[in-house]
Amino acid sequence: MTTQQLVSEIRKKKSFLCIGLDVDLNKIPAHLLQEEDPIFAFNKAIIDATHHLCVAYKPNTAFYEAYGIKGWKSLEKTINYLNEKHPEIFTIADAKRGDIGNTSTMYAKAFFEDLAFDSVTVAPYMGKDSVEPFLAFEHKHTIMLALTSNQGAFDFQTKTVDGKELYKQVIETSKSWKNSQNLMYVVGATKAEYLADIRKIIPESFLLVPGVGAQGGSLEEVCKHGMTDTVGLLINSSRGIIYASNESDFTKAATAKAKELQQQMENVLK
Amino acid sequence: MTTQQLVSEIRKKKSFLCIGLDVDLNKIPAHLLQEEDPIFAFNKAIIDATHHLCVAYKPNTAFYEAYGIKGWKSLEKTINYLNEKHPEIFTIADAKRGDIGNTSTMYAKAFFEDLAFDSVTVAPYMGKDSVEPFLAFEHKHTIMLALTSNQGAFDFQTKTVDGKELYKQVIETSKSWKNSQNLMYVVGATKAEYLADIRKIIPESFLLVPGVGAQGGSLEEVCKHGMTDTVGLLINSSRGIIYASNESDFTKAATAKAKELQQQMENVLK
Repeated sequence: MTTQQLVSEIRKKKSFLCIGLDVDLNKIPAHLLQEEDPIFAFNKAIIDATHHLCVAYKPNTAFYEAYGIKGWKSLEKTINYLNEKHPEIFTIADAKRGDIGNTSTMYAKAFFEDLAFDSVTVAPYMGKDSVEPFLAFEHKHTIMLALTSNQGAFDFQTKTVDGKELYKQVIETSKSWKNSQNLMYVVGATKAEYLADIRKIIPESFLLVPGVGAQGGSLEEVCKHGMTDTVGLLINSSRGIIYASNESDFTKAATAKAKELQQQMENVLK
Repeated sequence: MTTQQLVSEIRKKKSFLCIGLDVDLNKIPAHLLQEEDPIFAFNKAIIDATHHLCVAYKPNTAFYEAYGIKGWKSLEKTINYLNEKHPEIFTIADAKRGDIGNTSTMYAKAFFEDLAFDSVTVAPYMGKDSVEPFLAFEHKHTIMLALTSNQGAFDFQTKTVDGKELYKQVIETSKSWKNSQNLMYVVGATKAEYLADIRKIIPESFLLVPGVGAQGGSLEEVCKHGMTDTVGLLINSSRGIIYASNESDFTKAATAKAKELQQQMENVLK
């Protein structure tokens, strides 16, 4: 999917909501555990109930790998379902990968070819040659960690490197990498006040913003400091939507929560 | 496995060799492609031919994920084979994972419980709460990227942060994390001259050292600057051993290459 197609979907749906599919078998409605593939059954139900309100889905690979081969099968079924039923929806493999060159190419193949996601998240610690292999894939997007939503972000990311915070160095440096037009960045909603500074470095790039809701970030603040002429934001909510209820009404509850966020976004887009 | 058990194996085998199982179907002997599971068939043959010469095996997860569910099955068969046949061998899931707290716990479960590896590699960018969940597992080891063997290491890792290179900040900071005794560190052999400085910060910790051989690092230099009283080193070779030949004699060639490194190590240990 091209960035232009993503922007056009955002305009059409009046939403820049991304829903995180982080499925924990201890948190889903008990009746689904009798299904042959409870994780996929849950995802399918959530997708069916929310696809008209969001423009992206983001399964975090950790939640699938924890269940081994069964989990990987659920992930495959989920991305296939999305690509077949809703090809207009942007898909993100939240995998936070990164390795030396030829190895990163294998990861890129795993997520862009074998699983056919539109994008994958990557970690920047290993530098240019660990990220460029992902950028080489046309119409695919690489979403690099810049400033994350957790407390540990203050351990290294905000430390000063050669007169500038590390996360700024990471963003700035990445602009010179080959095919950097395929980069997006992760910036946590819990650090919305940093967004104005980030926009000075990358005025146009899309940002994937986790941390609204359960983690305490504010949608309003994120939009105030981070929105661009072409929106430039994908705001993620996971637990707040998918676990809005763990009873038989869980799809209704998820729809209601997603609708709530979509309407806030519609107001901002006006 | 405890660190003491690892050290005792090193003494017994006179080897601190780790063999990287990075299986690329384009590089293995053609006759194996007729096997039902060529990746596992290759790994089994390599393990059978080299287990007496090394103390650790390190599959890099990228090479398995690239083949989807089939690849994940090959990885599972490989770790199960190692745990059944060679429980005294230290196993490393080279996965370079890291995410916010509850998500890192899922990754830890994937590699320590579902796949029963002794250790996993992690990336430090997201800080303390992204790594501590791994450290909570008893008798399991978390091998954190410090200074990697690739060119991109110079993009951020060697940059100066508050008066000290980032990789040093990462190592130093991690010492204060809960259960930090379960930490080991990745330091590339291509940067052996940095090892003396690193040993000032962590005089005892085990280091996983990739980059000897194909990437150009020197075993001698690494030992000179990095070895401790309890050895403290696992030196990895992947391609140099497993692809020593891609003909029917590939196991013999792998044995010969592993033996060569083991004998260099035996000389150093004297």
